[in-house]
Amino acid sequence: MFQFIKNGTVTSVQGFKAAGLHSGIKKRKKDLALIYSEVPCNAAGTFTLNKVKAAPILISKRIIEKKNKIRAVLVNSGNANACTGEQGHKDALAIQKYCASKLGVKPDEVLVSSTGVIGQLLPMEVMMKGIDKITGSLSSSGGMDAAEAILTTDLRLKSYAIKIKLTKGEITIGGICKGSGMIMPNMATMLAFLTTDADIDQPLLQELLLKSVNKTFNKITVDGDTSTNDMVILLANGKSGISIQKESKNYNLFLEGLNKICEEMAKSIIVDGEGATKLIKIIINNAKTISDADTIAKSIANSPLVKTAFNGADANWGRIISAAGKSGADFNPLKTNIYFDDLPVMLAGYKIVIDEEKASEILNKDNFSISLDLNEGECSTTWWTCDFSQDYIKINANYRT
Amino acid sequence: MFQFIKNGTVTSVQGFKAAGLHSGIKKRKKDLALIYSEVPCNAAGTFTLNKVKAAPILISKRIIEKKNKIRAVLVNSGNANACTGEQGHKDALAIQKYCASKLGVKPDEVLVSSTGVIGQLLPMEVMMKGIDKITGSLSSSGGMDAAEAILTTDLRLKSYAIKIKLTKGEITIGGICKGSGMIMPNMATMLAFLTTDADIDQPLLQELLLKSVNKTFNKITVDGDTSTNDMVILLANGKSGISIQKESKNYNLFLEGLNKICEEMAKSIIVDGEGATKLIKIIINNAKTISDADTIAKSIANSPLVKTAFNGADANWGRIISAAGKSGADFNPLKTNIYFDDLPVMLAGYKIVIDEEKASEILNKDNFSISLDLNEGECSTTWWTCDFSQDYIKINANYRT
Repeated sequence: MFQFIKNGTVTSVQGFKAAGLHSGIKKRKKDLALIYSEVPCNAAGTFTLNKVKAAPILISKRIIEKKNKIRAVLVNSGNANACTGEQGHKDALAIQKYCASKLGVKPDEVLVSSTGVIGQLLPMEVMMKGIDKITGSLSSSGGMDAAEAILTTDLRLKSYAIKIKLTKGEITIGGICKGSGMIMPNMATMLAFLTTDADIDQPLLQELLLKSVNKTFNKITVDGDTSTNDMVILLANGKSGISIQKESKNYNLFLEGLNKICEEMAKSIIVDGEGATKLIKIIINNAKTISDADTIAKSIANSPLVKTAFNGADANWGRIISAAGKSGADFNPLKTNIYFDDLPVMLAGYKIVIDEEKASEILNKDNFSISLDLNEGECSTTWWTCDFSQDYIKINANYRT
Repeated sequence: MFQFIKNGTVTSVQGFKAAGLHSGIKKRKKDLALIYSEVPCNAAGTFTLNKVKAAPILISKRIIEKKNKIRAVLVNSGNANACTGEQGHKDALAIQKYCASKLGVKPDEVLVSSTGVIGQLLPMEVMMKGIDKITGSLSSSGGMDAAEAILTTDLRLKSYAIKIKLTKGEITIGGICKGSGMIMPNMATMLAFLTTDADIDQPLLQELLLKSVNKTFNKITVDGDTSTNDMVILLANGKSGISIQKESKNYNLFLEGLNKICEEMAKSIIVDGEGATKLIKIIINNAKTISDADTIAKSIANSPLVKTAFNGADANWGRIISAAGKSGADFNPLKTNIYFDDLPVMLAGYKIVIDEEKASEILNKDNFSISLDLNEGECSTTWWTCDFSQDYIKINANYRT
């Protein structure tokens, strides 16, 4: 039903081309990416909720809200074009327009996106030359280059594609993303670009993307910071000839596949979290409301004390229940059970049943889960986080300079 | 009008005795403290808002709420007696009762307080022996020993006293506190014990303490975590014979003095923050509401990205405005000015006016301020935070084991 494609990427989907290259914004690494569709696409997007929004966010958000057909997404790394005022806005529009003219499409058919240092103007001449070059370099095997060009402090390439068998025929979803610091929901907190050859009208595409982002990208956190620049974009070109209709079996299959690839992408961001050495799943079961469950999960996932304890493989369940307690969510700690993977750690009434040796074995893995059973209601949630290591500090104390 | 006393402490106030010693809860360091008043005191207190409340919190909170007269405060470090269920509650009551009997007072005249590891039962025999010893060691020069005995991961003793000249005569306030991790308001987030010889009735004392805590202890943050155990207690024995009445000039003078000593105590906690190398004042001016101002200050003060940038003396104002933007507070980043000390950094419209050399000079000091002028209204707030260093991780990854 669902099959991940080896070395899958945005160009694993028919009708999409891409490229990625070094234009000169960064010293040496690739810094400019372009995703291009042979035909006009429907496009859905979610954008950062930070009050401080970078120029490309404002421009791309407006285009998605107008439900325009899209032909391309131009992304640069190394410079966020955020907090750059009127000039930054003009620059983003100029780049959008120039890229559109080179592709022979309308400016409003090009989404723009930036990531990198805040508060510096884009090097326009460098970028124009980069656009000259990249619009001539598009290829149907260019997805990986694009995936590389959107990275900043990331250590790993993040690129996926999944095939979904529908009731009749199959479609593909491809995606690339970046992010390793400033990772925290609401929303967006990183860049992710997805392509599909399914035929889905814009409002339905937006609905599907929102549902999926709320279960995946919005439930990961590295450090509780929400960036000024982040977005998730999903382009649907309809090339498969298979149309997804609301409340159909295919709708559910598509959503399930979209969830799968978005979950992999979201987890890949956590695994590559700045200084992260462990991927930790936080599961909250039987909360009164989803909001209570999310509030507790988020509080645990963001607690520096919890995250440093994970780093030291310290079975410090006290910090976990304390992080839950300070979250403001409605629950009774006296009714709560805590598990590491399947190992009971603390049961209702603060009954400590932990087997320290087994707990230590679990916490020394690079991938485990912490679950809390609140025994209050029927709502559950799953979040992902990483540990907090000395490298996190090293990376962030010295990032800009 | 206000004069800090050199080597001031809780026993700098007439009528108070104290002691601190090693009972055996910790391996070597002092771990048991007792503050004792020769006469019954009025007592005010504020307590952690964490849903997970340690046994001594529940017991002491009830006593304060009943407005009981108080004779003593017994504090142990090394064991938090939190998440210890019914047995933990019984243990705390037993200790309170035993201490009271040794002092010849009623159990309800003794406040209890614990700090340390969560989830372990108190070593009762060790503590009883400690109480035997400490009740016989009380002295009017014992404040510093008590200050030492309440510490956990703290590196420095935190002890102060201030003399306040009133319209006629003078009174003294003394205080000791502890805290270096899990520091974050709402409320309490550390232990602080204050004594005064002013004569103040209980409801007024509670009002004064609340006002002061809200401007000082509740505006500091090391890591955004709120502990299960923390409390601030203020004892007033009336020995000076000077009575403080509501809406008097002396009321204002007392409050001002209380604010001064609480601010020093709060800042001493930040300076001793786990791994901290810098004390940073966060000032938000001209917000629409106090709540907006506090929300923004808290978001900046807790942002790991901001705190690591401070650690690296990186003038990364982009992270500051971004942390403000993600806070959810109502303001317009386009109207905001940012200053480091008096140096303008970013002015309205994202106008970057930073002098990088001067900024670097400021950020390399161990004490500086960040202020945001929101140009929205007339509300202001001041918070204190520290930087985030590699040592924070080291300390917290290995604390329990």
